[in-house]
Amino acid sequence: MQIHGDMLIGKSAVQGTGLSFFAIDPSTGEEFAPTFNSGTTENAEAACALAEQAFDIFRETSSEARAVFLETIAHNILDLGPQLIDRAIKESGLPQARLEGERGRTVGQLRLFAKVVRDGHWMTPTLDSALPDRTPPRPDLRLRKIALGPVAVFGASNFPLAFSVAGGDTASALAAGCPVVVKAHGAHPGTSELVGKAIQAAVTSCGLPEGVFSLLHGDGRTVGQALVSHPAIKAVGFTGSRQGGLALVRTAAQRAEPIPVYAEMSSINPMFLLPDALAHHPSKIGTGFVDSLTLGSGQFCTNPGLVIALEGEHFQQFCDAAAVALEAKTASTMLTPGIYSAFNQGVDKLASIAGVSVIARGQHGSSACAGQAALFLTDAETFLSNPALEEEIFGASSLIIRCKDISQFKQIAEYLDGQLTATMFLTESDRLAAQVLLPVLERKAGRILINSYPTGVEVCHAMVHGGPFPATSDSRSTSVGASAIDRFTRPVSYQDLPAFLLPTALHDDNPLNLWRLRDGELVQA
Amino acid sequence: MQIHGDMLIGKSAVQGTGLSFFAIDPSTGEEFAPTFNSGTTENAEAACALAEQAFDIFRETSSEARAVFLETIAHNILDLGPQLIDRAIKESGLPQARLEGERGRTVGQLRLFAKVVRDGHWMTPTLDSALPDRTPPRPDLRLRKIALGPVAVFGASNFPLAFSVAGGDTASALAAGCPVVVKAHGAHPGTSELVGKAIQAAVTSCGLPEGVFSLLHGDGRTVGQALVSHPAIKAVGFTGSRQGGLALVRTAAQRAEPIPVYAEMSSINPMFLLPDALAHHPSKIGTGFVDSLTLGSGQFCTNPGLVIALEGEHFQQFCDAAAVALEAKTASTMLTPGIYSAFNQGVDKLASIAGVSVIARGQHGSSACAGQAALFLTDAETFLSNPALEEEIFGASSLIIRCKDISQFKQIAEYLDGQLTATMFLTESDRLAAQVLLPVLERKAGRILINSYPTGVEVCHAMVHGGPFPATSDSRSTSVGASAIDRFTRPVSYQDLPAFLLPTALHDDNPLNLWRLRDGELVQA
Repeated sequence: MQIHGDMLIGKSAVQGTGLSFFAIDPSTGEEFAPTFNSGTTENAEAACALAEQAFDIFRETSSEARAVFLETIAHNILDLGPQLIDRAIKESGLPQARLEGERGRTVGQLRLFAKVVRDGHWMTPTLDSALPDRTPPRPDLRLRKIALGPVAVFGASNFPLAFSVAGGDTASALAAGCPVVVKAHGAHPGTSELVGKAIQAAVTSCGLPEGVFSLLHGDGRTVGQALVSHPAIKAVGFTGSRQGGLALVRTAAQRAEPIPVYAEMSSINPMFLLPDALAHHPSKIGTGFVDSLTLGSGQFCTNPGLVIALEGEHFQQFCDAAAVALEAKTASTMLTPGIYSAFNQGVDKLASIAGVSVIARGQHGSSACAGQAALFLTDAETFLSNPALEEEIFGASSLIIRCKDISQFKQIAEYLDGQLTATMFLTESDRLAAQVLLPVLERKAGRILINSYPTGVEVCHAMVHGGPFPATSDSRSTSVGASAIDRFTRPVSYQDLPAFLLPTALHDDNPLNLWRLRDGELVQA
Repeated sequence: MQIHGDMLIGKSAVQGTGLSFFAIDPSTGEEFAPTFNSGTTENAEAACALAEQAFDIFRETSSEARAVFLETIAHNILDLGPQLIDRAIKESGLPQARLEGERGRTVGQLRLFAKVVRDGHWMTPTLDSALPDRTPPRPDLRLRKIALGPVAVFGASNFPLAFSVAGGDTASALAAGCPVVVKAHGAHPGTSELVGKAIQAAVTSCGLPEGVFSLLHGDGRTVGQALVSHPAIKAVGFTGSRQGGLALVRTAAQRAEPIPVYAEMSSINPMFLLPDALAHHPSKIGTGFVDSLTLGSGQFCTNPGLVIALEGEHFQQFCDAAAVALEAKTASTMLTPGIYSAFNQGVDKLASIAGVSVIARGQHGSSACAGQAALFLTDAETFLSNPALEEEIFGASSLIIRCKDISQFKQIAEYLDGQLTATMFLTESDRLAAQVLLPVLERKAGRILINSYPTGVEVCHAMVHGGPFPATSDSRSTSVGASAIDRFTRPVSYQDLPAFLLPTALHDDNPLNLWRLRDGELVQA
């Protein structure tokens, strides 16, 4: 399939009339063909208008029809074959194995949501029987969740497949019955076009209204703001920087009708090394930590950017092992020249702060944007007195905090902003300290890990990829896993509806064979 | 129990040092004892600090302990006996039978949430088994929902018991494990003190930390803003005016850490009379509508403020019946002099708009704040061209819209803002028109009713008392019914936790006998 530099507005391929741009190969810093043209406010309006037209039809398609649609998208993405992977490699600098794995994740995610739609738990079908003889009589009341409305999705730079055009936000919104308008990330426009066309083809072959999906190019200030301001858009999914996320949150709050924004923004993912675990495995944890830190040039939302441990002999062994491991890591290509440059600025700024020392740097790399890993050391007092030390540096940079006593662990945990993850390394002997720390970490993070590293976000039912602000703008949600669909729904209650008006999920005879809450009891009868 | 004009900050009774005020008997317009003193910012801070201290302990109390706590509150409220009803009558002007019913609703609501806590569905316990042999291995992942944090609750004027100090917001927040700080409504401070002391006594007798509950007096601009701005507060429940709700939404959005505000604000609850239903029962619907409209002086969030019907003979019969019924209604006391005055201003403004005519007024009443019911008529074109006609008039005022053809029904439905409820009167012959209208109403309202009147909000599992903006600030939620608890929770995922750290709800052997989603299947084993 040739890449034309197209936007997709419903079934039409459209060339933008805004500023031109190219994809950049971050391993060389060079631009390459074709030319892409940014969309305009008018393009955003056209996509939103189509989405609005499609909404009532799409949201009432059967569960089976939406499941097949999601599976068709997955199939079409796989059908793109090596072209998709090759283009993504060139646009992102990520290696082939990683992108093939990410494609598997993307396709698996679409299939999970097909299952989620078929299961129907997301609708929380609920029936309360009429009690005509009660004083006053109780009416017949039934509830289901319905799709919230058209959703604007902003793809992330660091997962050009799994958090982008057909990523978790899109998959979960489509599963709920929400049309989606994606603003492609400027770092991988060709990858976006290919995946966008795979979705567009699925819309057509499944006989859905064209407005179910559109794909726009352009920057956040014009196309992005136009999308989030548009009255037809009822929710926003975003993965990216804190600055970018907060700009969308502000715009959404200022609308005549405010709408929810699910922005996944910034997290430094603290790891607390409890004393007995540190005493037993200082070197093993040090090495494992550096492997997690440097994976994919450290460009993960769940990258371990902070380590908290007690001073002493084992602390030194941990630091030494980590330093040795880090110094052996060769810098790999970062996603964009901009991300590479921000990483270097972040590392330089951290190195310049009084009380912070560099304990190791990784090897230089050969490519244009090769981010050289960095490991820093400070003490608890310095960390607690300088908010700059809590700022995320996107890339393979981490700060180790040396504590004088275990009470500083809790102090640091309480001090931290909201996080996607928090980790404890522990043995059974660390039990008391862990029990003190756990409630604090529950308040601070969306996911708690024990004796494992935070990179690697499983797509399943029990995952929470979310967390208190500023990790996300809405701690009540997850952007990964089955519950991601809940973000794009709202409940509707039906009082005394005749059978001919009742949604199928709420029919007396339960034709969809759903688990339903009936007079307060879960039943599938 | 004597009413002292106290605020309750944890276990302490505190006299505010802000402006003094009195309760006013709306039937006479006269102030009566005792003196109440408004709280200060410092009082709000003290209450929030206690709530923060109580949070980790309270949220991890057992389901049984929290259920018993809710039941103890219910018991203590009933134990207040006639004093509570007498005080509420004097402060609100509402009749005894209504307040006794409302007390029953309040107590029933607390008991429902005791059941909700024991059931444990609200935690959505979810377990995904480890797959150690998969490549890469899948960790053990488990999820539960936990309490969001301390909650600020703003009581409503129109339900001095059921939407106030121990109302649905408080009951659902406490059920989730959130400490609550209530800002009492200034119209019923004595009722608030009595109910607050019933909750305070339950906190003590159940051995809970004192910060689980506080009650403050004062106005929204000082105490209210101090509460919503306080870092310890993690969510807000509010029932009241659009202006008041939006002020809290703005404050919450401007915090360093933005928090959710669940504000139930304004709704005119349209009733669409489909042609065959109107032809069969014009007078019956007209009379029933007026009964619903004038119930409790029309001071319900779900009051039917808009009726849409086709012009013609049956339309005239409907209007005539409604006019006759309304003219027979004697004005009853409204809640406060301010509400009475706003009602009269709203009615006068509506009467002055070109194209709107008064078709009936109720009888005058004998009390100081007796709101005289009002019924207006306009046509679809006038309604669609003047946004002022969509403004809520709180009280017994409604506007009938005469349509030229059935297509105007859909046009009006699409034009309307978000609503708590939307109603259709129909017969089976109206099926096609109803099927056209239903999807629009689903987008516009939280609850759809057929052939019944919107006043009367059942407390059950399938209720949604919520709806798209501006009916509420968050259409994803309900403030009445079992799902109200979901507003005050967030999910946490646990990866590879040893048994000694796992929350009881997620133990392998399911000691709480919960329904859990285990590897994607609902099981209770």
